[in-house]
Amino acid sequence: MSLPTQTREIVLASRPNGAPTPDNFRLVERDLPALQDGEILVRNTVMSVDPYMRGRMNDVKSYVPPFQIDQPLDGGAVGTVIASRAEGFAEGDSVLHGLGWRDVAVLPGARASKVDTADFSDSAYLGVLGMPGLTAYAGLMAAAEFKAGDAVFVSGAAGAVGSLVGQIARLSGASRVVGSAGSAEKVARLKDLGFDAAFNYRDGAVRDLLKQAAPEGIDVYFDNVGADHLEAAISSMKLDGRIAMCGAIAQYNATEPACAPRNLTLLIGKRITMRGFIVSKYNDLQQEFRQTVGPWLADGSITWDETVREGLDNAPQAFIDLLAGANTGKMIVRLD
Amino acid sequence: MSLPTQTREIVLASRPNGAPTPDNFRLVERDLPALQDGEILVRNTVMSVDPYMRGRMNDVKSYVPPFQIDQPLDGGAVGTVIASRAEGFAEGDSVLHGLGWRDVAVLPGARASKVDTADFSDSAYLGVLGMPGLTAYAGLMAAAEFKAGDAVFVSGAAGAVGSLVGQIARLSGASRVVGSAGSAEKVARLKDLGFDAAFNYRDGAVRDLLKQAAPEGIDVYFDNVGADHLEAAISSMKLDGRIAMCGAIAQYNATEPACAPRNLTLLIGKRITMRGFIVSKYNDLQQEFRQTVGPWLADGSITWDETVREGLDNAPQAFIDLLAGANTGKMIVRLD
Repeated sequence: MSLPTQTREIVLASRPNGAPTPDNFRLVERDLPALQDGEILVRNTVMSVDPYMRGRMNDVKSYVPPFQIDQPLDGGAVGTVIASRAEGFAEGDSVLHGLGWRDVAVLPGARASKVDTADFSDSAYLGVLGMPGLTAYAGLMAAAEFKAGDAVFVSGAAGAVGSLVGQIARLSGASRVVGSAGSAEKVARLKDLGFDAAFNYRDGAVRDLLKQAAPEGIDVYFDNVGADHLEAAISSMKLDGRIAMCGAIAQYNATEPACAPRNLTLLIGKRITMRGFIVSKYNDLQQEFRQTVGPWLADGSITWDETVREGLDNAPQAFIDLLAGANTGKMIVRLD
Repeated sequence: MSLPTQTREIVLASRPNGAPTPDNFRLVERDLPALQDGEILVRNTVMSVDPYMRGRMNDVKSYVPPFQIDQPLDGGAVGTVIASRAEGFAEGDSVLHGLGWRDVAVLPGARASKVDTADFSDSAYLGVLGMPGLTAYAGLMAAAEFKAGDAVFVSGAAGAVGSLVGQIARLSGASRVVGSAGSAEKVARLKDLGFDAAFNYRDGAVRDLLKQAAPEGIDVYFDNVGADHLEAAISSMKLDGRIAMCGAIAQYNATEPACAPRNLTLLIGKRITMRGFIVSKYNDLQQEFRQTVGPWLADGSITWDETVREGLDNAPQAFIDLLAGANTGKMIVRLD
């Protein structure tokens, strides 16, 4: 079978103003460069859409450089090596790499890592075994300094990161695990996953819903949402509580800067530590993460959900829907 | 000379709504109880007015219980023992204790600590050697995790705590020390104290003023002010920066909850840790504080200022003026 000489890829057609729309994206075909020494040619089987990508669509300085207009988007993907001029990679290998949003990618072998798809699906490496998994583990353990006995609240709890935070906390000795999500179905799913309490944030004021779900207060808040969720968590927080700021999906599509929690000065009297983080800060916890969480995955103690869309041309809509909360668990786009 | 049987004291006449006014306070005379075993009778020579007292005038649950209507206020004071039925205390001893806002106090000896007024004035124990001193030291070292080479910004820098934070940072190897204050005179004083840069926050947008004063950004922010100061500090903060939240004097007199910094989500990408604290959390650092800072006081490396008002009847106005920023250094009311 002859090797592909072209790829289809999604480029950023224009920067979103507020929530992204389909016309911010464009599917193009592009010639692939000839394979150089040290490079591999990969046919992607799955790609990731993640909330953090929304920030990269704005033209602002941040911890990762912004996407450029008319240039392809990128992000996590798993694929099969179809040609290799890189040592250590052979045709048929499954690899995790950073050139998603396209069918076929050419990249240095040094920027790919081989993954074993015998025990876990390719998509697991974009979720529970990948960046979202480490984000959940390191955010809870390092950023929020979790300890056994803590009462934990996580927002966006039905998402890829949040659902793991809750389960890791439960398995690590949390006294209570509370999650919030955006639908009755998601709330039901959280209870299946072993959350002690869960609520639909659309059912009322988050502050009240959280007080009902955690009447004795919380020690740890893992924030994926920001805004009124953060304010509610500060209100319910006990002395010496800790907040890991992981994301602020409520604000990603905002066109005006949000008025942040109005009760922020409570951090003083309650002696609260609030720590923002991005997962790359905790790459040194990768091994500990796999050693701790791996067995829980293998024996079924941890369950993970995926919401799967099919085809590269549906990737923009998958991303748009992710930001609107359409996913339960990891949102994946399958390309094979 | 016969012992006093009465004291004059300031009671809370009514709760302030916004900025306190003189009619929120009332000077009363009250009979003193007979001295019991274990107690001492103290004639106060100096008393403290501190920003945190404003919070205690509201009827809300906080880390210290609220003051009660028609009951005396309290707070730090130094006085002379004029009668003692407590072991270890003799007539003429100088003691630090918590029953300020009155001329004469009766209290258990266990609630007083003897101080040496040979080397330092009585009022030093209410400031540089007392609660504000430990607040500055522990807030900088423990809450903000200061390390040599950090660029440090402190707001309320001409105040009792802020002026010490800046000087301790400079003496501990800060790469740059920046302070903000509310008048040109205070700014000039900060430069005398060795601040590398200082600005009057009334001269423009704090965000712009801070960027001029610290063009390469800051690693540590010691917050005494809150509001736009906190937003500016987040904006100027470098990767892995740390914020110690000590006070929020800009908001103490607010009748509406403030809209907190609109850029709070920057904590994520900048991996910022923000830690609220009250000094009692760090009582275990008392000895380290005295060992570190004591020599700097003795050899003149650290300078401290006082703003002194005379007489118990002027204490309410001293407190009102403190909240309006009338003090340079520690605001003291002298009672002798």
